[in-house]
Amino acid sequence: MTRLEVTEKIISTKVSKGLKWADVAKKVGQSKEWTTALCLGQMTASPEQAKVLGKIFGLTAEEQKWLQVVPYKGSLPTPVPTDPLIYRWYEVVSVYGMTIKELIHEEFGDGIMSAIDFNMDIQREADPKGDRVNVVLSGKFLPYKQY
Amino acid sequence: MTRLEVTEKIISTKVSKGLKWADVAKKVGQSKEWTTALCLGQMTASPEQAKVLGKIFGLTAEEQKWLQVVPYKGSLPTPVPTDPLIYRWYEVVSVYGMTIKELIHEEFGDGIMSAIDFNMDIQREADPKGDRVNVVLSGKFLPYKQY
Amino acid sequence: MTRLEVTEKIISTKVSKGLKWADVAKKVGQSKEWTTALCLGQMTASPEQAKVLGKIFGLTAEEQKWLQVVPYKGSLPTPVPTDPLIYRWYEVVSVYGMTIKELIHEEFGDGIMSAIDFNMDIQREADPKGDRVNVVLSGKFLPYKQY
Amino acid sequence: MTRLEVTEKIISTKVSKGLKWADVAKKVGQSKEWTTALCLGQMTASPEQAKVLGKIFGLTAEEQKWLQVVPYKGSLPTPVPTDPLIYRWYEVVSVYGMTIKELIHEEFGDGIMSAIDFNMDIQREADPKGDRVNVVLSGKFLPYKQY
Amino acid sequence: MTRLEVTEKIISTKVSKGLKWADVAKKVGQSKEWTTALCLGQMTASPEQAKVLGKIFGLTAEEQKWLQVVPYKGSLPTPVPTDPLIYRWYEVVSVYGMTIKELIHEEFGDGIMSAIDFNMDIQREADPKGDRVNVVLSGKFLPYKQY
Amino acid sequence: MTRLEVTEKIISTKVSKGLKWADVAKKVGQSKEWTTALCLGQMTASPEQAKVLGKIFGLTAEEQKWLQVVPYKGSLPTPVPTDPLIYRWYEVVSVYGMTIKELIHEEFGDGIMSAIDFNMDIQREADPKGDRVNVVLSGKFLPYKQY
Amino acid sequence: MTRLEVTEKIISTKVSKGLKWADVAKKVGQSKEWTTALCLGQMTASPEQAKVLGKIFGLTAEEQKWLQVVPYKGSLPTPVPTDPLIYRWYEVVSVYGMTIKELIHEEFGDGIMSAIDFNMDIQREADPKGDRVNVVLSGKFLPYKQY
Amino acid sequence: MTRLEVTEKIISTKVSKGLKWADVAKKVGQSKEWTTALCLGQMTASPEQAKVLGKIFGLTAEEQKWLQVVPYKGSLPTPVPTDPLIYRWYEVVSVYGMTIKELIHEEFGDGIMSAIDFNMDIQREADPKGDRVNVVLSGKFLPYKQY
Amino acid sequence: MTRLEVTEKIISTKVSKGLKWADVAKKVGQSKEWTTALCLGQMTASPEQAKVLGKIFGLTAEEQKWLQVVPYKGSLPTPVPTDPLIYRWYEVVSVYGMTIKELIHEEFGDGIMSAIDFNMDIQREADPKGDRVNVVLSGKFLPYKQY
Amino acid sequence: MTRLEVTEKIISTKVSKGLKWADVAKKVGQSKEWTTALCLGQMTASPEQAKVLGKIFGLTAEEQKWLQVVPYKGSLPTPVPTDPLIYRWYEVVSVYGMTIKELIHEEFGDGIMSAIDFNMDIQREADPKGDRVNVVLSGKFLPYKQY
Repeated sequence: MTRLEVTEKIISTKVSKGLKWADVAKKVGQSKEWTTALCLGQMTASPEQAKVLGKIFGLTAEEQKWLQVVPYKGSLPTPVPTDPLIYRWYEVVSVYGMTIKELIHEEFGDGIMSAIDFNMDIQREADPKGDRVNVVLSGKFLPYKQY
Repeated sequence: MTRLEVTEKIISTKVSKGLKWADVAKKVGQSKEWTTALCLGQMTASPEQAKVLGKIFGLTAEEQKWLQVVPYKGSLPTPVPTDPLIYRWYEVVSVYGMTIKELIHEEFGDGIMSAIDFNMDIQREADPKGDRVNVVLSGKFLPYKQY
Repeated sequence: MTRLEVTEKIISTKVSKGLKWADVAKKVGQSKEWTTALCLGQMTASPEQAKVLGKIFGLTAEEQKWLQVVPYKGSLPTPVPTDPLIYRWYEVVSVYGMTIKELIHEEFGDGIMSAIDFNMDIQREADPKGDRVNVVLSGKFLPYKQY
Repeated sequence: MTRLEVTEKIISTKVSKGLKWADVAKKVGQSKEWTTALCLGQMTASPEQAKVLGKIFGLTAEEQKWLQVVPYKGSLPTPVPTDPLIYRWYEVVSVYGMTIKELIHEEFGDGIMSAIDFNMDIQREADPKGDRVNVVLSGKFLPYKQY
Repeated sequence: MTRLEVTEKIISTKVSKGLKWADVAKKVGQSKEWTTALCLGQMTASPEQAKVLGKIFGLTAEEQKWLQVVPYKGSLPTPVPTDPLIYRWYEVVSVYGMTIKELIHEEFGDGIMSAIDFNMDIQREADPKGDRVNVVLSGKFLPYKQY
Repeated sequence: MTRLEVTEKIISTKVSKGLKWADVAKKVGQSKEWTTALCLGQMTASPEQAKVLGKIFGLTAEEQKWLQVVPYKGSLPTPVPTDPLIYRWYEVVSVYGMTIKELIHEEFGDGIMSAIDFNMDIQREADPKGDRVNVVLSGKFLPYKQY
Repeated sequence: MTRLEVTEKIISTKVSKGLKWADVAKKVGQSKEWTTALCLGQMTASPEQAKVLGKIFGLTAEEQKWLQVVPYKGSLPTPVPTDPLIYRWYEVVSVYGMTIKELIHEEFGDGIMSAIDFNMDIQREADPKGDRVNVVLSGKFLPYKQY
Repeated sequence: MTRLEVTEKIISTKVSKGLKWADVAKKVGQSKEWTTALCLGQMTASPEQAKVLGKIFGLTAEEQKWLQVVPYKGSLPTPVPTDPLIYRWYEVVSVYGMTIKELIHEEFGDGIMSAIDFNMDIQREADPKGDRVNVVLSGKFLPYKQY
Repeated sequence: MTRLEVTEKIISTKVSKGLKWADVAKKVGQSKEWTTALCLGQMTASPEQAKVLGKIFGLTAEEQKWLQVVPYKGSLPTPVPTDPLIYRWYEVVSVYGMTIKELIHEEFGDGIMSAIDFNMDIQREADPKGDRVNVVLSGKFLPYKQY
Repeated sequence: MTRLEVTEKIISTKVSKGLKWADVAKKVGQSKEWTTALCLGQMTASPEQAKVLGKIFGLTAEEQKWLQVVPYKGSLPTPVPTDPLIYRWYEVVSVYGMTIKELIHEEFGDGIMSAIDFNMDIQREADPKGDRVNVVLSGKFLPYKQY
């Protein structure tokens, strides 16, 4: 058995039962962003969370154990994503990458914005000209240190 | 002459004069994010904006004209960026890409978050455990239509 | 179960029953272009459309549900397509890409032609020197905005 | 001297003189699509056309000769284009590639739509919800023959 | 079922029955080059040809139908082929590619040698210093047209 | 100095003087195919041939010496060629590669068609439906030997 | 059935029976290098050799036939091998490639060292500072000919 | 100044003076294989060797210093070499890679053949059927150790 | 059967039984680093070690034999790893690669740090500002020798 | 001016003056590892450090300013390094990558070893069987947090 098989079972069950990630997240007791990433095989569950997911998706004890194993991360099948929604994010990194780098360094100096001590919040932003997707990313600034 | 040469002159002048993107943006009258992207060769200036930048960076009339030409966009030298700060953004797309896709579709249905009708705001977020980089991305949702 | 399995079943059934995409599209009530893309796993069906397709291709209730799930898009096995018919389209983008960019910008300014708010119409164009394929692409122009 | 140098001179002169491709095309006496592709180093000029372009862009006799040499075609710096406008076209090929293949074969049988005996027309399409880019592609159908 | 499965069955049957492509071609009534390409999943059969192949290779009615569906072409697993015999052909394109381009343009002007309106003939050429492989390629010249 | 610089000078001079490869080949006393490949930096000249080319293209003694140095071969800038004329040859290898392999092995057994003990002849083939490019490739068959 | 399946059966049987390539080669009557390459799916067996291998590895009549079919060659899963032992050979080609080219050309003129009319012998070379692997490669020199 | 510039000067001087690597090696007092690799920018010279090369190729004191700096190794412009002579070596690694691995492990156990504690000898091998290139590679066997 | 299948069984058993690599290593009698690499299919076991692992993971006699076969090494699915933990190591090689090269050469001269005669020790390093991962790598220096 | 030009000047001056990184580091007052990375264009200097380096390497005021600008990091010309010394490090990541991942997760849970809050120490380790390179890497463990 592999984590991928557990992920596929979760996705398959979600479609056949018509579940919503937001509802799954409420039962797990975490944000919809982190919970979805967990269900998609990118994060690691506590035993309690694995149990909750086990009940929702009908997972065996062994499948629940796999949810508690740290997975090999990376959710995309190609380095440059082909799916248009995900590509737009890649495009933002491509077009604005140097801009982001310049502005973070101007404010903080040399270092990075963590993708580990990190959280994300995705919301609908009502707009008369057409609703918008509003995303807040928050990552700890980690400075390069001299030694 | 190419746009790249104008970009390189702007960067070189910024270093030698010790300028800040935030100050440049104030004079241009736009956000620091858009203005920096313009200076780095990703956006297109109006004649007035080109004039303002011309004064700041000592650009000739021809160089100012190049700022008004739509550039070939994409600011990174490799498909997978090697710079650690930019890579972390690529990693977010890699690890969370499927999660972002799932949650936007759950809220909006099939479509994308625009990277064109789009804006970004990067701010310092004070935190006793270490300050954070807070980034807000806002893109219009564009639905796939049937025809 | 995955969307890919549904797509393969549709294609397999189409061959064994000798169906035509144009006829499928008429029953679905949409264009042959959009309907074919839907059947090939690139678009998302409404419940009614899924039902119609279910009848045509003998799909189970669960398979019909998968047609209503937003798919991971991208229909080609390699970044540069090897199939000669599809490659010719890639070649048009390669040879004429900069031309298309220049002329759209000359007419509209900085921005893009949407591939989401987009439709396509493929027709036979009779010609005594040999019939031609006539394709009309129509995409909304989306301007880059300053902020 | 290379064709690339001639192309760069043409682009550079166009920016500094503020010329328009549509006006250049009128003087050349061909469509704006073909003429722009010629100026961008993708097509081959007749001696008369080279002379006309020579006058417009101030090209030397040797530079005019280079316009009459068949160029090594392909206008993009990477297999997957990074520029958002051109990427959308690549995305259309990626998402709709199999659909285009299926529908042309359904209508014509095995063969391709020529990218050589080919023409393209790009127009603004007024639309109250936002103007559209309308593109007509016409390519001769070339059947695979048995032998 | 897919065309690939039909191809694999044909190859497998050919080995176990000890058939020759040249004999298969005679029964099909076409050249050995086109017939082999058809059997290897690159060309499209008429109903009669599919029947003949069905008899030779013991194909079911459904498998014969698949032979009549236009396949996704491209017979090699990697862009640069690893098999030495096929690599030598790739090497000819690599080493002589610019030469071929120059000489065809010198004779015909701008355009291409068609790979669709195309045929190939492979023969043994007796030679006292060691027999040679003699290959004749014939493709219609297609000129780029101005418009 | 490098061989590439000599090649570029030859090409540049050819354009400015309006020379033809066929005429160059006659003076060199070899086929137009081999002579063009030599001029394009893929083959090695004898001292006499270098002298003849030196006179035609105005090469210095040192440049003539470079023509006699075995070059690093391979004339294309990318593994998959972007130029449509050369791509069609790559496509032939892609679509017919396995066919060529099967037929040569059927006739000769395991081995290859040499790309070294090799020659090529490109001719116009008059045809009322449109002239054709006729190419004859001849390569010695080299058998894999057991040891 | 495919050649790959025969190769996998041979390897699997070798492990479970604890066989040695050197012993297999003796029974086949050829060198251990050629015989191993044959067993690993890179060479073509005669009917007698196939029979001998059939007895050693318990192959069916059909599997023995596959050993006599010319295989699609190339034994590595990636263009740059990840296995350290094989990578060192790749490194020799990378570091010494130009040296090998220069020295063979200095001795023989333009041409190649054949990888077809080729043999290899791998031996242990006793050395007090640590035994060495001694490999002799012998390939016929094939000159490029003028035509 | 870079090592590459020194390498280019050495190669250029070798051509204009008509030198031979074998003669250079004799003066340096090492094998022609190692000396050529040194001259091509892959190895590191002692001060005495740098002096000798300085005299032969007319190198300045600073250029001689660069010969004593450990270079960034790797002499090929692409991962898969396009030059036919070098490609044949790559092909040997591709076709025989697994065979080499099996036979070295059968003789020595787990470990590698060193490409550092390594030497190579290239010789002409007279043969009535056509002379051969004979290459002896000798590398220390390095065992993987347990810890 | 393949080594990969044995590796997958070991991993799967480890998850279902809740074993720890450190404990497995103690029973094997080697370091946790080497033992884990062995279990993950990168190293070769002695018959005794295979027996111990066989008992721990419930391996058959044939599976134990596979642990004693030298594996094809390389544990990552892509050249640039997508998993964040492993990517950080790749990043260290990317950012510090030239630094490591310079400092080892400054201390030892031309040569490499062996990855074969090599060991690694990973430990927790307590730190009030947050615990650290402390890794010691030790590899024999192997000098390039002249010959 | 670019940072790359400053790096090249530093390297060039180091060779012509015969400087050592260890000595440069002492004057800068930081470790040899960090200081070398700074000089090679991977780290950011304080004004004082830039002054010290300016004196050592004869840098202008503007060049010293560039040392204080955060650079675009990544020191290698290809994703898979060709230089043998650096490749061995890549190989360690390839062979031991999954092992490192497993052992860090076993000790710390889900998270990464930081490559930013990171330091490295390279030392000679005397050994009668041949001296070894001893490297200590220390990176803060950063846990993935739930949110």
